[in-house]
Amino acid sequence: MQLIDGKAIAAQIKAELAEEVRQIVATGGKRPHLAAILVGHDGGSETYVASKVRTCEEVGFQSTLIRYEADVSEAELLAEVERLNHDDDIDGFIVQLPLPKHISEQKVIETIDYRKDVDGFHPVNVGRMAIGLPCFVSATPAGILELLKRYHIETSGKHCVVLGRSNIVGKPVANLLMQKAYPGDCTLTVCHSRTKDIKKYTRDADIIIAALGSPEFLKGDMVKEGAVVIDVGTTRVASAETKSGFKLKGDVAFDEVAPRCSFITPVPGGVGPMTIISLMRNTLLAGKKTIY
Amino acid sequence: MQLIDGKAIAAQIKAELAEEVRQIVATGGKRPHLAAILVGHDGGSETYVASKVRTCEEVGFQSTLIRYEADVSEAELLAEVERLNHDDDIDGFIVQLPLPKHISEQKVIETIDYRKDVDGFHPVNVGRMAIGLPCFVSATPAGILELLKRYHIETSGKHCVVLGRSNIVGKPVANLLMQKAYPGDCTLTVCHSRTKDIKKYTRDADIIIAALGSPEFLKGDMVKEGAVVIDVGTTRVASAETKSGFKLKGDVAFDEVAPRCSFITPVPGGVGPMTIISLMRNTLLAGKKTIY
Repeated sequence: MQLIDGKAIAAQIKAELAEEVRQIVATGGKRPHLAAILVGHDGGSETYVASKVRTCEEVGFQSTLIRYEADVSEAELLAEVERLNHDDDIDGFIVQLPLPKHISEQKVIETIDYRKDVDGFHPVNVGRMAIGLPCFVSATPAGILELLKRYHIETSGKHCVVLGRSNIVGKPVANLLMQKAYPGDCTLTVCHSRTKDIKKYTRDADIIIAALGSPEFLKGDMVKEGAVVIDVGTTRVASAETKSGFKLKGDVAFDEVAPRCSFITPVPGGVGPMTIISLMRNTLLAGKKTIY
Repeated sequence: MQLIDGKAIAAQIKAELAEEVRQIVATGGKRPHLAAILVGHDGGSETYVASKVRTCEEVGFQSTLIRYEADVSEAELLAEVERLNHDDDIDGFIVQLPLPKHISEQKVIETIDYRKDVDGFHPVNVGRMAIGLPCFVSATPAGILELLKRYHIETSGKHCVVLGRSNIVGKPVANLLMQKAYPGDCTLTVCHSRTKDIKKYTRDADIIIAALGSPEFLKGDMVKEGAVVIDVGTTRVASAETKSGFKLKGDVAFDEVAPRCSFITPVPGGVGPMTIISLMRNTLLAGKKTIY
């Protein structure tokens, strides 16, 4: 069994990105510039955005944080999105989700110019991904594919079972791994809450992507010998072991499942560290105008 | 075994559409108007477009056919697309594919205003479909779902195996049938050229959507007793039995498979007749501004 070290891979990619930015700037190119809009003071959102800003600094991007109070009107927010769409200095930007209930997230997402949509949530990017065209792929699916690639995991003809059909993980990762590509070319099964006898599918899987958000859902007897297991779950559960009083639990009962696997990601330290890196990579692609 | 009669269902829906148009016009509403651009004189395209125009007449739509010779420039074609985008009288329009090699089909598709893209090929429509939002669904996948619905076929929790991953059938129908919806909520497997042992998957399937374009690929021993089989294949094969010298073959070895099925579509007369009807329905939705 080999542990997939998302933290190490993320650090390696961070170094690669920083080196590329250094070269771009050294040859007179423009330093990539990411903007983030943060509405309100949700604890999780504050942490994520702070981490994104910090990572921008580490790879040499310029970053701009734009804050609004939670009572900002939808119209005001959309106007700011339009302003960023037309600001030539901004290569890409994100609006940190979730947004307050009085603002339509989908409307905000669809107002972002898809050419600056480095979160990859705009329908043009989702649609181009489904068709197999170059696009901004959203952070978690992109991070999962990058881990498969960096560990040279064979995917062609493999049976990949995706647990969960969320718009941000299950569906896009399923769409990506069925494409004629590497990583990809998988026979692809998507299981979810309506699936009868999930074990029947997971026991047949060469690759399992667990993204149900159900702590320790995947047990040892649900996995065949030699499988690759990618755990996308990150549920906070109360814990007496940590200072914070909680710990992150994945969707995989790690201790039972790991001994059966050829490769497995831990939680934390697997897919998690890859997500911000995927956002950084999209921002670099936006800066270089590689896709659009 | 019950035969799914696509021809009869298409005729029924055509009558429903005609009745709705009659009511719209009777109450002072605008008659839906579909435009089609046809480039060159490809035999298949001529037939399809003529059939679309005829169906428009039958349901009471206005239709406009715009013809170009095969040597039209991409710029000229794109300019016409832009003109149609801004023509308030045109509710929806299509550019008949394939296009001559010197014209980028993807560029043409992405130039169409997605709100008039009744073929459902624009990335915004593909992306919104993948996310589960209202959109124009392309004709063949929409026709398949409509057949499942009209025959009240249970899909929730069923294992649906899609054979083929084309952008116009396999991928969209897979995306639709995994959504939280009816028809939908399937455990969804996509098989394709790289799949090892396709029979293993099809034998487990409650619903099989065969869209490989490989005549009589699906044999009797690949299907479990009671399965629902939807045959999307339409390969022309030489035949001494018909005047035209060819006949349409589906992806299913009908004589072997049918006796095992609970429901099955024939070829021809199954999915085929539904496709133009789906286009008509999208045009009506565009006329009523139901989606956008």
